[in-house]
Amino acid sequence: MASPTKLDMAGHGDEVTRNKKVVLRRYVTGYPTAEDMEVVVTSDVRLRVPEGSAAAVVVKNLYLSCDPWMRGRMTKHDDGDAVPAEDFVLGEALVNFTVGEVVDSTHPEFDAGDLVWGMSAWEEYTLITQTEGLFKINHPELPLSHYTGVLGLAGLTAYAGLFEVGKPKQGETVFVSAASGAVGQVVGQLAKIAGCYVVGSAGSDEKVSLLKSKMGFDDAFNYKSEGDNLGAALGRRLPDGIDVYFDNVGGATLDAALLRMRPGGRVVACGMISQYNLSEHQGVRNLWCIIPKRVRVEGFSCMDYHHLYPRFEEEMAAYINAGKVTVAEDVVRGIEKAPEALVGLFSGRNVGKLLVALA
Amino acid sequence: MASPTKLDMAGHGDEVTRNKKVVLRRYVTGYPTAEDMEVVVTSDVRLRVPEGSAAAVVVKNLYLSCDPWMRGRMTKHDDGDAVPAEDFVLGEALVNFTVGEVVDSTHPEFDAGDLVWGMSAWEEYTLITQTEGLFKINHPELPLSHYTGVLGLAGLTAYAGLFEVGKPKQGETVFVSAASGAVGQVVGQLAKIAGCYVVGSAGSDEKVSLLKSKMGFDDAFNYKSEGDNLGAALGRRLPDGIDVYFDNVGGATLDAALLRMRPGGRVVACGMISQYNLSEHQGVRNLWCIIPKRVRVEGFSCMDYHHLYPRFEEEMAAYINAGKVTVAEDVVRGIEKAPEALVGLFSGRNVGKLLVALA
Repeated sequence: MASPTKLDMAGHGDEVTRNKKVVLRRYVTGYPTAEDMEVVVTSDVRLRVPEGSAAAVVVKNLYLSCDPWMRGRMTKHDDGDAVPAEDFVLGEALVNFTVGEVVDSTHPEFDAGDLVWGMSAWEEYTLITQTEGLFKINHPELPLSHYTGVLGLAGLTAYAGLFEVGKPKQGETVFVSAASGAVGQVVGQLAKIAGCYVVGSAGSDEKVSLLKSKMGFDDAFNYKSEGDNLGAALGRRLPDGIDVYFDNVGGATLDAALLRMRPGGRVVACGMISQYNLSEHQGVRNLWCIIPKRVRVEGFSCMDYHHLYPRFEEEMAAYINAGKVTVAEDVVRGIEKAPEALVGLFSGRNVGKLLVALA
Repeated sequence: MASPTKLDMAGHGDEVTRNKKVVLRRYVTGYPTAEDMEVVVTSDVRLRVPEGSAAAVVVKNLYLSCDPWMRGRMTKHDDGDAVPAEDFVLGEALVNFTVGEVVDSTHPEFDAGDLVWGMSAWEEYTLITQTEGLFKINHPELPLSHYTGVLGLAGLTAYAGLFEVGKPKQGETVFVSAASGAVGQVVGQLAKIAGCYVVGSAGSDEKVSLLKSKMGFDDAFNYKSEGDNLGAALGRRLPDGIDVYFDNVGGATLDAALLRMRPGGRVVACGMISQYNLSEHQGVRNLWCIIPKRVRVEGFSCMDYHHLYPRFEEEMAAYINAGKVTVAEDVVRGIEKAPEALVGLFSGRNVGKLLVALA
């Protein structure tokens, strides 16, 4: 993945600009608050790839992606902990996916003016020296914001997780948690296209309504209304059980789903957002039943499926252009609101893919 | 699987015999005791397939297999519970694998005198009407008792679980729990043959010594001596992590192993004997780490691999004949001792594959 380093401070006679950025002030335990972050301004950066640097690009960020996995990087980990990405550096811009425009490039594959998405940072301008995780945008006729979600990493995660890990067959049942979220909404709609019966869970009646009325889910329910009866809620909606559970939340929902898996079922372990803010994880009590039911529970990283991105982008753009996939985005405007937006993600305040528009 | 029904009571002039059997007296909660079972004698059964019956065989049982999965069938379950097999019927012989000799047959594939192993019952004579789970013994030059374990279902479970589910590659690390048990001892030795570095855990120093001195494990440890430091015990012996964890125990060992899995690792979920006698299962707290590590946790049933049995039997017999696989059996003599033997399995009293010799 690209690892942004700092833009040069301007020298005498250069064109200079300010760079607003969201930095982490302190490492977080439990639920993050907006005060754990801070928006700071650097006044005189130069929008050029520094001389003597390896091939790199400077990107003007237009949309910042807000994602659950950012929570893990806000905690200070010990060396050797199993973490998917390094801890954020205090005082530096949060690292995550953005959509942007190249404003300078010394890289042969990128030119100024190119629209791109990929690993960048929560700031207005980012120098990207490692460009393996940077993709050109081939469908600018679609809203660029979609490249933070349905056409970006969330979409690829849904696509790879569902088809490469979950491997649903036509006529099978698919259950998705956090179903209106960035990944869940794509999983559910792709599963419908694949001919499955699809049920989603979400955290509000508004989200449930969105899933059923706009996104073609066969059924959906508000897990907060079900309390301790998640198993019964699943049993009513999927009386013959679940073939593929696409798990974005872990915890009680995973436990309930395990008991409802059909023989030979697959649990796609994508995320466990219910656990990210807990100092000690809840135990999964029903894992035993994967033995009598011969269930596969598999974690995956969409980083392993970057090679599928070109095919995925074309397929997904065609679905969106044809109206077969509906996109729900929750757009917050202005980098100043980014910390609060990210905090809201962990209480489920957003409806649809959460992102911050800068331009 | 074969589902034994009752042998006829003798009529006038028939040759009759007694039939001793181990029956379940009451359903069990928590750890079973010998008093939950009873040895009863039927005095006048006829050793013939009843007239008018479908093709069937009468088997004289020579060895009874004692297996952890019998515990599940000693509990009264509700309809719809996820169980691999039906509850035992109170007052009837416990159903499980045996090795025996056919004494009468109306089935075209079996003749009187054939040595067989398969699903039968804990009694001296059993009528087997469903013969799909009955196999002829092709290597009578080996101890017949081996067909309760290394050459029977335990061996096939080890073989299918390791190679079809765990898929170890040469040079990878394999960790096996309950490693001196019926399945574990075979897993470890097959993994060595496949060129892996193999570590086992077991519940006594005697068992650990057996693994290291007789069975070629690269390392082994007594989990009872490690207390709450299972993670450190694994870390010392497998500093670069675990590629394949063959889990026979679940619980704390599974939790510790999950944290030590290497990226792309596989957990073969074969059994969770640590949980079988608990009224509420312990939660698995470290399941989350399968996501960053892209680990697959897969339950399986060796019933799905019966088609591999002929190939397996030939391979395994060759390994034993060549001295490449060493077999440890814990043989209890006499059906009267069977209840106590089975109870001891759950406290780990046995060293090696536990079985009861009748003849």
